Amino acid sequence: QEDKTADTQQKKIDIEYTNKGFQFKTVDNKHLLHIESRLQFRFATPGDQNPLNYDDIYATDNTVFKINRARLKIGGHAFQPYLKYYFEYELAQGNLLDFRMMFNKWKAFNIKVGQWKTYYNRERVISSGKQQMVERSIITRPFTLDRQQGIEFSGRIFEGSLADITYHMSILTGSGRGASENDDNHLMYVGRLQWNFLGREVSMSGSDLDYCLKPEALIALAAATNTSPYTRFSQDGGGQLDGFEPGVTGQYEVNQFMIETAFKYKGFSWQSELHSKEIIDHVNLKTTQLNGSYFQAGYFFSNLIPVVPKSLEVAGRFASYNPNADITKNLEQEYALAFNWFFKGGHRNKLSAEFTYFALQSDTIEGDSGLRFRIQWDISL
Amino acid sequence: QEDKTADTQQKKIDIEYTNKGFQFKTVDNKHLLHIESRLQFRFATPGDQNPLNYDDIYATDNTVFKINRARLKIGGHAFQPYLKYYFEYELAQGNLLDFRMMFNKWKAFNIKVGQWKTYYNRERVISSGKQQMVERSIITRPFTLDRQQGIEFSGRIFEGSLADITYHMSILTGSGRGASENDDNHLMYVGRLQWNFLGREVSMSGSDLDYCLKPEALIALAAATNTSPYTRFSQDGGGQLDGFEPGVTGQYEVNQFMIETAFKYKGFSWQSELHSKEIIDHVNLKTTQLNGSYFQAGYFFSNLIPVVPKSLEVAGRFASYNPNADITKNLEQEYALAFNWFFKGGHRNKLSAEFTYFALQSDTIEGDSGLRFRIQWDISL
Amino acid sequence: QEDKTADTQQKKIDIEYTNKGFQFKTVDNKHLLHIESRLQFRFATPGDQNPLNYDDIYATDNTVFKINRARLKIGGHAFQPYLKYYFEYELAQGNLLDFRMMFNKWKAFNIKVGQWKTYYNRERVISSGKQQMVERSIITRPFTLDRQQGIEFSGRIFEGSLADITYHMSILTGSGRGASENDDNHLMYVGRLQWNFLGREVSMSGSDLDYCLKPEALIALAAATNTSPYTRFSQDGGGQLDGFEPGVTGQYEVNQFMIETAFKYKGFSWQSELHSKEIIDHVNLKTTQLNGSYFQAGYFFSNLIPVVPKSLEVAGRFASYNPNADITKNLEQEYALAFNWFFKGGHRNKLSAEFTYFALQSDTIEGDSGLRFRIQWDISL
Repeated sequence: QEDKTADTQQKKIDIEYTNKGFQFKTVDNKHLLHIESRLQFRFATPGDQNPLNYDDIYATDNTVFKINRARLKIGGHAFQPYLKYYFEYELAQGNLLDFRMMFNKWKAFNIKVGQWKTYYNRERVISSGKQQMVERSIITRPFTLDRQQGIEFSGRIFEGSLADITYHMSILTGSGRGASENDDNHLMYVGRLQWNFLGREVSMSGSDLDYCLKPEALIALAAATNTSPYTRFSQDGGGQLDGFEPGVTGQYEVNQFMIETAFKYKGFSWQSELHSKEIIDHVNLKTTQLNGSYFQAGYFFSNLIPVVPKSLEVAGRFASYNPNADITKNLEQEYALAFNWFFKGGHRNKLSAEFTYFALQSDTIEGDSGLRFRIQWDISL
Repeated sequence: QEDKTADTQQKKIDIEYTNKGFQFKTVDNKHLLHIESRLQFRFATPGDQNPLNYDDIYATDNTVFKINRARLKIGGHAFQPYLKYYFEYELAQGNLLDFRMMFNKWKAFNIKVGQWKTYYNRERVISSGKQQMVERSIITRPFTLDRQQGIEFSGRIFEGSLADITYHMSILTGSGRGASENDDNHLMYVGRLQWNFLGREVSMSGSDLDYCLKPEALIALAAATNTSPYTRFSQDGGGQLDGFEPGVTGQYEVNQFMIETAFKYKGFSWQSELHSKEIIDHVNLKTTQLNGSYFQAGYFFSNLIPVVPKSLEVAGRFASYNPNADITKNLEQEYALAFNWFFKGGHRNKLSAEFTYFALQSDTIEGDSGLRFRIQWDISL
Repeated sequence: QEDKTADTQQKKIDIEYTNKGFQFKTVDNKHLLHIESRLQFRFATPGDQNPLNYDDIYATDNTVFKINRARLKIGGHAFQPYLKYYFEYELAQGNLLDFRMMFNKWKAFNIKVGQWKTYYNRERVISSGKQQMVERSIITRPFTLDRQQGIEFSGRIFEGSLADITYHMSILTGSGRGASENDDNHLMYVGRLQWNFLGREVSMSGSDLDYCLKPEALIALAAATNTSPYTRFSQDGGGQLDGFEPGVTGQYEVNQFMIETAFKYKGFSWQSELHSKEIIDHVNLKTTQLNGSYFQAGYFFSNLIPVVPKSLEVAGRFASYNPNADITKNLEQEYALAFNWFFKGGHRNKLSAEFTYFALQSDTIEGDSGLRFRIQWDISL
């Protein structure tokens, strides 16, 4: 049952505990494996979900205490340091989230194949374990491309210069997580251009934990087009936004674009996104325009006021979502304030408390609002 | 995609094979991971299931040879030796059983959050790999609280004294394994007081493999209350006992209590439980009372008769269950005799043969009985 | 919650990277664990599936690029080097494929229990990662016994002599992957006799990567009988061949046999199988006879023509399948040509390109044909 090449390439291993968990590496660094798990405990009252519409504010919410995420992460490289792989598994729900190989030999041109979070916008790409707030904003649900299968080309060019650019181009099935085949021959195409105009990339994590001594900044543009039976994507795969019927093959053509900014400097961090999305329903011959945005900032006030503990960050976010641009009185807003306490290990062991105020208005109702409190412990093992 | 704190805390690792499988530990013991799997092979004739009622004895049973359990266990601690975690996965059925974090800094006050086997009664809490008989008794199905999500406070006080007490208090969703949210705002509350009146705790495993030179004993009381759509719990989550219809939110209020004893000394082990459970059906306005008990003992006769092999334990169990206390002629009884052969590794590599005699009577039928033979190999890898 | 035998047997570990991935071994070699994952990326046009019948050639095929396999493999031994275990998990679909224990103390008599690929025919037993072509032939679907649960006895006798024989006898549930209990008391029985007439076994992998200096050859006979609701098996468990209705308990009695040859010598490899299968439908009182065969050969032409790269193998296959022997004009044929490029690591990092020509004819239609191109990268991590 085994071939004979078996024992030809045995190599000694170095083991270390790193910020990616336990790591096993051959002495020649040709093979490497790291394994880590992460748990996220969350308490939320009066409920955890973002309100989707007017009725949701008064929905029978239950105070919840739950394990919101339980992840197993295995990554490393094989045969060469630049031939990387990564798996991520959601244990509680039994979902395989990421499985991908990366060819990262050259900084200016990388290839990725498999399934992963589409590199489109910052808020979604940042790991849920490295977020600044307890959860992503209300505009993630309508605008995220979430995880897809396919191929991506990316790279960074003119590094350190005024023209420092990071680009990502993806060709994906556009059928959502777990869908290895497309419904038709219309694939999803995604492009993103990120201008690191200070010559330094902003790291893909919330909060300026590193206390950057030199400012880091970016402006990014991204666009995507896809034709599929879906109007939105989530961890469960493809689905429908409020008001859209279950789709058939090729029913929904979605075109969307985004403008993003991010900045980090001496304990201060900023990020924002402006989204626009057009859904063309080829069955009902109807076009809907959605708009949304958020603005978020955080600061370690210990840098300003010595009496504030060094482990404490305060962060705030404002988000706004218009589900149908034709109806002006149709707006959902989120105002959130968060307090993060970073234990030893930074984002790997963190306690967050968050207050959120929701304001909703629609064309039929004058407007309503609600409050939510959440507390969360996120730990990587 | 990665933050920059990455390579700051690399630490060398010690590796050992322990009785929890392969173990990886940083030299400073701040981080530890152990990984183990376990397989349980079972042959049963004329069938494996316990008879639930009169008809079941004559049900078309099939002789079975099967992998009854296939488990993956990952545990350890992170950042501090007292910040522990544990995952257990049932591979064959794809069920995540345990995922929990424990804060065990002080012996008198521990905190546990996540999902695990509710600390209520001894028979259920003992791992299926450390049981004395092939499987738990017929009273586990009606009385177990099984796995739930929530929080537990526990500790041991006055250790070594006459007032040596181990306590456990749990607040749980009460909706069964895999249910992170409660159906309503009625949670499950569980309390347990265990009096170690000889000043030594009885270890949580069947059989006195350690040949305790000093006697260990306990008397424990436990009680639980829960309101949910369910009348029983198992690995599949919430379900119904015989004769109860599928429930709606808040239909079944369940109050139950238990008295437990356990004792180990020089190769002899004893344990018993007395259970009582009241189910109040708030829809049909009906109350049902259930009673059950078991008594179990085992001994390594090599301690008495030198010719008997040291690896052999003989154990016996009597269990009795009354599904409705209002009907006196309504009784199920189990008489079991087991022979355990412990290979090197104790409970980690064990062969068990078991003979069971079932006797059933109901108000309509005079009574019936049946026999079962099972043989099982349980191995931890 | 833990027994006290805990810390008695801690042992130091050696770690190496081997051709089975990362390997952990106690210094005394009593315990060993290896962990490996494997990804298979596939592009296929105009589609990936083999045509099952005339209509399939014209079916609306979609060009696919997909992760065809994502496997996690954990194996090793426990307590003794001859007490082996092996798990294999299909990550993308969440299927537990293999879970088994092997008692391999004596070469002439081994025992295996659990679930695995029934040792019946070479094409199916060879791992999908060690195949010579991109995928198994068109006759795998109708003739494979696939994975089953049960017990197997096997061994090799008269090793090195003219009477060198490898035998396998299996008693299985015959209900397919994931089915731990049989539908009735008719089990599946499988026997296989393999004559290694040159005194050397042919390794269970495609391609003569080892450049055998002495010829290796085998002739094998195998037979199987099973009564179940199914006419075929696959990774999804039991199912039906074209033209058979969903079955009831004991409906289909299947008797089948096979003749296999294999040969490897100095970079050349050959294998063939002849299959015959009789399906007796005990409900509709109908018997169907199926026949099939394939012939496959490969060669590293660098051994003949120095200008050809050493990493390149060329291989070809012809397969023929008759779904009903009573209808002569009812034939499916496959002609395939493959080019394998072996990176460092042999089968563990391999690129394959394959051209296939299908020819189909039935009693009602004169005949039709189709072409397919596939390219595949298979990498073990």
